[in-house]
Amino acid sequence: MKMIKGGVCAPKGFLASGIYSGIKKNAFSKDLALIFSEAICTAAGVFTTNKIRAACIKISGVHLKNNKAQAIIVNSGNANCCTGEQGFRDAEQTAEVVARALDLKASLVLISSTGVIGKLMPMAKLINHIPALVEQLNTRKSRNAAEAIMTTDKVVKEAAISFKIGGRKVTIGAIAKGSGMIYPNMATMLGFVTTDVAIDVAALKAALKCCVNNTFNCISVDGDTSTNDMVLILANAAAGNKRITLNAKADFEKFKNALMQVLLYLAKKIAKDGEGATKLIQVCVKGALNDKDARRAAATVCNSNLVKTAIYGEDANWGRIAAALGRSKAALKEEKLSIYIDRVKIFSKGLPADADEGALKNILSKDEIKITVDLGLGKAGITMWTCDLSEEYVRINAKYRT
Amino acid sequence: MKMIKGGVCAPKGFLASGIYSGIKKNAFSKDLALIFSEAICTAAGVFTTNKIRAACIKISGVHLKNNKAQAIIVNSGNANCCTGEQGFRDAEQTAEVVARALDLKASLVLISSTGVIGKLMPMAKLINHIPALVEQLNTRKSRNAAEAIMTTDKVVKEAAISFKIGGRKVTIGAIAKGSGMIYPNMATMLGFVTTDVAIDVAALKAALKCCVNNTFNCISVDGDTSTNDMVLILANAAAGNKRITLNAKADFEKFKNALMQVLLYLAKKIAKDGEGATKLIQVCVKGALNDKDARRAAATVCNSNLVKTAIYGEDANWGRIAAALGRSKAALKEEKLSIYIDRVKIFSKGLPADADEGALKNILSKDEIKITVDLGLGKAGITMWTCDLSEEYVRINAKYRT
Repeated sequence: MKMIKGGVCAPKGFLASGIYSGIKKNAFSKDLALIFSEAICTAAGVFTTNKIRAACIKISGVHLKNNKAQAIIVNSGNANCCTGEQGFRDAEQTAEVVARALDLKASLVLISSTGVIGKLMPMAKLINHIPALVEQLNTRKSRNAAEAIMTTDKVVKEAAISFKIGGRKVTIGAIAKGSGMIYPNMATMLGFVTTDVAIDVAALKAALKCCVNNTFNCISVDGDTSTNDMVLILANAAAGNKRITLNAKADFEKFKNALMQVLLYLAKKIAKDGEGATKLIQVCVKGALNDKDARRAAATVCNSNLVKTAIYGEDANWGRIAAALGRSKAALKEEKLSIYIDRVKIFSKGLPADADEGALKNILSKDEIKITVDLGLGKAGITMWTCDLSEEYVRINAKYRT
Repeated sequence: MKMIKGGVCAPKGFLASGIYSGIKKNAFSKDLALIFSEAICTAAGVFTTNKIRAACIKISGVHLKNNKAQAIIVNSGNANCCTGEQGFRDAEQTAEVVARALDLKASLVLISSTGVIGKLMPMAKLINHIPALVEQLNTRKSRNAAEAIMTTDKVVKEAAISFKIGGRKVTIGAIAKGSGMIYPNMATMLGFVTTDVAIDVAALKAALKCCVNNTFNCISVDGDTSTNDMVLILANAAAGNKRITLNAKADFEKFKNALMQVLLYLAKKIAKDGEGATKLIQVCVKGALNDKDARRAAATVCNSNLVKTAIYGEDANWGRIAAALGRSKAALKEEKLSIYIDRVKIFSKGLPADADEGALKNILSKDEIKITVDLGLGKAGITMWTCDLSEEYVRINAKYRT
């Protein structure tokens, strides 16, 4: 298995494009992306758990009912959320216009939006640019598409991996966005995955669900789950491998591991590119009584403003980590709890450890910080990622809409 | 009923003092407070729900078992939390030394600490200053005590109210602290209440629990619940009123309402004095299916960094309010949801309202912002308070320990 270039265009038979249509105010920012497969794909998706759901979430859900898709249209700059019936009709029309331009059935077009909530989509701009978007489609434009789905992201997020299934070379590619409103429980970001493997629907859904749960659902920037976020995967079978099913266990595991690697790479990139972030923080919880407790404990540490500001200040303030764990609802006994920063034990079974302050200072000056928590109660664990909280986060989010 | 001056010394028979002992590094900051009643009091307390509990929480809980107390010793600058057996012995010793100096049984002394977690208490400094602290006790030093319990607070928090029970003048006084680690569910701050009413234990406990639940448990600064926080109340019966019981309903309600007024005043003061805060935000949820949903909805809006930064930026970004409600786990239907900022409707039953941008701009420029959410589903409601999130919060918390 190796990571390769090419993003969503790395797998055979996929084209992409990304252009500026005017939905975003800034004329230098692309805001419209298209991903297209030459053949009809087996498709699956995971959608936000927020009860406020954008029009694109509803429509993509409906279009995915037959588990088939051939194109994904994405815009940034406007979420088309809380826009009522008109918003829903606008999203439907967008899918229809894209379908006509590509000569597909509208139900084969999935749709995704990200940006400001509560403004009607500037439909004339969007519709008028679809011909150009289709015309630009080619097998080297994954990066343009990746750029066009960015909002406050500072870093383009693309990944691809190739490996063999039954002697055949197969490839998975992906692009993603997301640097605010990032919180475990799906939603929280956009991710679009393409692959040329042949795989049946049940196996594709199972792999996507498991991989999202261990990657995108393990990152947090600010604890805010968005109304729009989704991960979609299209598999077009162009690699010609023997179709992967849940019964073909070895092939399925291989595919799942490769998908995990791609999504984990992107998830960590999203956490590290959190709004205003200066450091990636990895929170590894072990010794939890069960999986639910492990996730609760890790998520509460990841979402603590006090922990995140301490790391930003390069301060080994483990008291804030202990306090976050204490309110996390995970089972916890102070006298069994230990906390490490990198490999330095700073809290040992209920007591401050005699940590080397010089070593800690050096560790905390780096741009990736690893916090390990041993609850000492059981065998469950999880690893999650977040970023630090800086003045820049506040500046970005105090100014975003206006 | 009227608010009066005098804080914890306003009720008859209470003395207080506050001095600098050296626990805090800054020589200009008081860090040791004492509240003393001339007579033994009926006492009650509410303690943090955090599973990591400071030594003072454990000891005050034990001392309160017989519902009697006569003194409260409080230090700031060191939480004496996560300090193991030594921390526990230090807290016990503190209570004993105070008891000896005041000629009381140690079990009549309650103890409270706030500050950094995980450092042993500098006991020599603390113990050596207890004689001076006792010597300074008088009936006009509530403010000194209020100052001595502050950490990153910028504003001294004192309140008192007097009213009549059965023709007798009675008084409630209080001091409080807390500007970070403030989150609903008790804990979250320190509050010390004195009163000269005669009241039985059951009535005192019921009133305190109800009032804390509707005041201190309705404020949030950063969603972080602390390991140390508590509210204590001492009632010394010096007013000579007929003893209030749960059966004397009219008197009980009168006392509860007065206590509510005192605690609400302090709670709002804490929210407004949140670390780095520039605005007090009131979040009023109505139309919820039940009380639990109302609290969930209001708390999620109060704890959303994105909502708090938008208010800081004076931006009527109601999409972030809708998104927070959507992830709050409260029952919600987009088409029934309405959102107001002050009296301006900005989201009306699932659609953006045509709000007057000029009026909104004027409202958002003020230092108290009222958000009202009507879920449109039922009859339950709640009001909670928080503050905005500024760059200053990050600066304070990135620098606090070091």
